[in-house]
Formats: sequence, C-alpha cells, structure tokens
Amino acid sequence: MTAPPDKEGSLEFLVGRALGNGSLSEFLDLLPELSDDLQKVEECLQQALPISYPFLTESAVYATASGGKRIRPLLMAAGYRSLGFSKTTEIQALAAAFQLIHTATLVHDDVIDHAQMRRGRPSVTRAFGTPAAIVTGDYLFVRAFQLAARYPAEIILRCGEACADLAQGEVMQENSRFDLTTGKERYVRIMIYKTASIVAAGMASVALVSAASAPIVEGLEEYGRCLGVAFQIQDDLLDIYGDPDVLGKPLYSDFREGLPTLVTLDAYGRLSGREKGEFERLFNLRRKGPADLLRLKELVDSTEAHARGLAEARHWAEQAVEALSPIPPGPYRSLMERLAQGTISRRF
Amino acid sequence: MTAPPDKEGSLEFLVGRALGNGSLSEFLDLLPELSDDLQKVEECLQQALPISYPFLTESAVYATASGGKRIRPLLMAAGYRSLGFSKTTEIQALAAAFQLIHTATLVHDDVIDHAQMRRGRPSVTRAFGTPAAIVTGDYLFVRAFQLAARYPAEIILRCGEACADLAQGEVMQENSRFDLTTGKERYVRIMIYKTASIVAAGMASVALVSAASAPIVEGLEEYGRCLGVAFQIQDDLLDIYGDPDVLGKPLYSDFREGLPTLVTLDAYGRLSGREKGEFERLFNLRRKGPADLLRLKELVDSTEAHARGLAEARHWAEQAVEALSPIPPGPYRSLMERLAQGTISRRF
Repeated sequence: MTAPPDKEGSLEFLVGRALGNGSLSEFLDLLPELSDDLQKVEECLQQALPISYPFLTESAVYATASGGKRIRPLLMAAGYRSLGFSKTTEIQALAAAFQLIHTATLVHDDVIDHAQMRRGRPSVTRAFGTPAAIVTGDYLFVRAFQLAARYPAEIILRCGEACADLAQGEVMQENSRFDLTTGKERYVRIMIYKTASIVAAGMASVALVSAASAPIVEGLEEYGRCLGVAFQIQDDLLDIYGDPDVLGKPLYSDFREGLPTLVTLDAYGRLSGREKGEFERLFNLRRKGPADLLRLKELVDSTEAHARGLAEARHWAEQAVEALSPIPPGPYRSLMERLAQGTISRRF
Repeated sequence: MTAPPDKEGSLEFLVGRALGNGSLSEFLDLLPELSDDLQKVEECLQQALPISYPFLTESAVYATASGGKRIRPLLMAAGYRSLGFSKTTEIQALAAAFQLIHTATLVHDDVIDHAQMRRGRPSVTRAFGTPAAIVTGDYLFVRAFQLAARYPAEIILRCGEACADLAQGEVMQENSRFDLTTGKERYVRIMIYKTASIVAAGMASVALVSAASAPIVEGLEEYGRCLGVAFQIQDDLLDIYGDPDVLGKPLYSDFREGLPTLVTLDAYGRLSGREKGEFERLFNLRRKGPADLLRLKELVDSTEAHARGLAEARHWAEQAVEALSPIPPGPYRSLMERLAQGTISRRF
C-alpha cells in the first residue's frame, strides 16, 4: 500500500527529473506537500485495483506500477494547489482516475505496437499475454470511471470526451502508419488527440472541482494541452536521441513500427533526390535491421531536424507557460512553469 | 438514424425469436410500446457514436449494428414497464449504455478469440483490423460511461462493478483455455461474471432509477443474473447444436478455441478409458480439422450431455421466473417470464 510511485523512489528524484537540469532547490519547500499528494493518489490506486480473481489484480497492479512517471497526478496536484488550496483531498481520486486512464491506454498501445518493454520491464502484453492485456486495459478504464463517478457529471463527461479524443488520436495514428505523406499539421492534431487532450482534461477538471472561474479553467486546460504536445514531441525525439537505459526501452520504435513523427516528417520533407527515395524505402520496410534504423537516423540528422524538433517543443512549452497567466502567481504556478520547461530537457 | 435494430427489421421478429416457438400472440398488445422503446434506445446509440474522425465513427457504428440482438434493452424496457411506468424516457440512455458495454466486450472478445464472423458479417477485427478493433472497443466503453454519467453515482458504480466482473470473467475464461480440469462450479462462476453480471446490473439499475423497493431491485437483479446464465448455457449449446446460417457464424468455435463449456466439462467428466483420452487429446489440439471437431461432438453426444445441458439451462430459466415474484403481476411481468423461458428454446 505504500509502494513508491517510481522504482527510484523519492519525489525529489521524480520532480528533479521532471524539471530537467538542476533547479530543484527553489522548489524544495513544496516537496513534502507534493510527496504527500502523490502518496495519497497512490493509495487511491492501490485501493481501486483489487478484485477477487488474483490474476487480474496482479496484471492491473503490474500495469499501474509501470504506468508512467506520475507526471499527470503531479501536475494536477500542483494545479489545484496553485489555486490556493492547502489540501488536495478533493482531487486525489480524480488524479487516480486520470492516471488509470493513462495506464489503460499504455497497456492497449503496447498490444497494438507489439511493444515488449515498458519502463525497464516486460510490457503487460509480454508478461501476461495479449488477451489478459486487452482485458486489463478495459478493467483499468472501468476502475477509472468508477473513481470519476464521485465527481459531478460535467467532470465525468469531460473525462469521457478526452478518452474519446484519445481513441480518435490512436486510430488516426494507426491509419498514418507507414504513411510519410501524413502532414505536420495532421500529426500535431494526432498528438493533441492522443496525448494532450487527456492532460488538458485533467487540469480543467481540477479547476472545475475548485469551482474556479472560466478563465482559470481554460488557462489550466490550455496549459495541459500545450504541455502535452511539448511532452509528446520530446517523447518522439527521445525515441531517436535518448538513452535506452534511462528510457527503459530500446530506441527507434517509431521507425520500426512505421509511425511518422514530427521529426520524421520534417526530415522527409527536406530530403530530396536519391536520399528521399532511400528514406522512403527504408521507412516503409515492414522489418528493419539495425543498419536500416541507423541509416534512417543518419538521414534525419543530415536535415538537422533534431534542432527544429526541439525548437517546436520549446514553442509549445512556452505556450504552456503563457496559458498560466490567469493563475495567481505563487510558488505552485512557478513550479508548473518549470515543469513545462522541463518537458523539453527531460531525458526519460 | 432510424436503422432497424436487426437486419430482419421488425420487433415482432425480434421478440418472436426471443420468446422461442410461437406464443407471440398473447403479447401483441405490448409490441408497439416496446418497439418504440427500442427505437429510442437506437436513437441514443446513433447520437452517441459520431466523432470527428470518420473511420472511428464507422467502426463504432459497424460494431453497434452487429452488436447483438438488443435483448438487453428489451429486458430493461420490459422491466421498467413492469413497475408501472407508461414511458421509458428515464431509462433509454441507460439501456443504450448497457448495450454499448455489451458491444464493446463483443468487439474485444472477437479480437481475443480471433473470431472472423459476428452475426453474419465480418467481425470488427476482421473488417477494420486488430488495432482499430481494440480502440473501437475502448471508445464504446467510453461512450457508455458518458451515457451513464447522467444517472446517480450509485448506478454508475453498479455499472462499473458489472464491467469489472466482466473483465474478471474474461480472464478466468482465458486462463481456463485448454483446461479440462476446470470444474463445473468454476465454469458457472465464469458465466456469472462474464455474461450474467452485466444483465443483472442492467435490470437492477432500471429498478434503482424508478426508486423501487429493495426486494424489487434484488428481484430484477436476480432475474437478470439467472437469465444471463441460462442464456450463456444455451449459447454454448448452440455452438455445437445450432444452425450456422441462423447463428451467422460457424459452429464449434469453443472446441476450436479450447474453451471448456458446461456441456464439454460434463461430457469429459463422464467419458472414461480410451474415449476420455481421445477427447482430451483432440480438445487440446491447438489446430483442429473438421474431423477432429466432428469426433469431439460425437464423443459429447455419446454421454448425452446435450440433454443435461438443456436441463441445466431450464433450471436457471425457472430460477429467473421465480426471482420475479416481488414484481407486480401484469403483462410485462408475464412477458419477462416468457423471455426467460424463451432463452432456452431460441435458435440464434
């Protein structure tokens, strides 16, 4: 029941990573409160998961333990506290619900992408089999909606709309597989649906629970949306430029699975002649060897797409910071600003 | 928007089939009302499904069109009317929610079971691909919970508990694949979790919406549970003894997929010596040819398991009828009694 939210344990570690290089010291005062918030969310999760058949409990607990970095609950707790609340009791179940939705989609994503690893451990589909992974994802969705059921209908509906967006983003992405003609605009839309909508809905819900004014609801929502896009761009960059040991999964999964990302589409758009043809041929291979993957990276590098990808992520992070203007200034708003900036320097 | 609930179109046909052989005439007066109820539920479904990405709308509509016989909405409408209400406006969205949950699980079931056909058409996984089928199932769950969001938290929670049962039944069944030592008791538990719980929750929810007394809530819930089990036993029997043209899918899928059912377990328990060994060997084959399937059926037949399976289904149908005793007598209660009895004579 008191399992740490991450195998590395401490919130210092977690927030430190989320903030990127250094700069933890100015937020040291906030850590005990936030640590307690995340601990409570963790307890909600632990209470929500057990069911009488141990195998399903086990797969659900396993999924939840490897289900991400707890950035969403951290953002929701910080967002709520930024509105002047000194306790987060009101939003803990809500944060747990959003964390479960996120986890459910990761479990189903790994089935769809045949992913073997997730955060340094075998994925649920690898560890428990595909049928169990499909059902475990369903089960996590159900528990999420049960946690959300104690909130007003408006919040349940928003949470549902974000899940619908997520499903839409997922099939749009699926249908863009091996399709280098997917435009950048379309890809940004996919990111908004697939990643950013649910972060935005989590932040908006926190504001709604606190009965905040419309500008604050919209500000937090927009913050979540922009941060989500920045986060996803960085995720895509890390798949090419990250450290697999830190990421807990091998590189080049997007190349391997034929998923066009912003950086891939940008590079493809700038290549010409023989190299464009080569990129196209390699990217469209259904099975790629190590040499194919490295050559794809080389071709991407030759266009300097990495730097432009980082600039795009920075742009979205800046938009996230700007969106916070209706939020009262204070240490939690500052923390949220730093978390947005941190998404683009993170290495995991 | 006015698509008929079944390709054969009329409610007469639908209810007639649900009631089994004949006996429709005594309920002719109820048909216009029930037909209208189902039409309204259908409209709720049609309104709930569209989303901006046409491909997802299409797969969701496709799934819903082949998503079962609308028995659940019919039972819920009859249950509500049996409590003295002359309109079902209050429960139409709820019935649509339960229908969507049912559909979502069929879509995911077909992915898990590699089922190619569903009600005479290619399954969603076959028609749209496995990734889209996984996401479409998720999407249908989400829309179901959004429809349920307008009801009191107690109902959302019950709906959620039934979904959790369903997930549990699914993994229990998955883990019993190719396992002839699965006991009959365990199999009944799987049926209750996987099929009956959600029917029970639908009926209980209808009573809760009407603010009925506890005995009525429990009576309708128990009716749903027992009818669900009778229904599932008949489903399992039809997989061996049905008419594939009427069913809209090939026979012997449980044999093929190694899913032990009541009749299989009963037969296996009664076989001995060489025949038991043969049954075991054939049942456990991962790939079975037509001769293997027919021989399995022959061995089941030799134990007269079919008759005992029917008797067991009849027992549960009788329990369903008994459970209705707290419901005020009247034409709708009579119809529900006949629907319970009809589950065991149905051929589809």
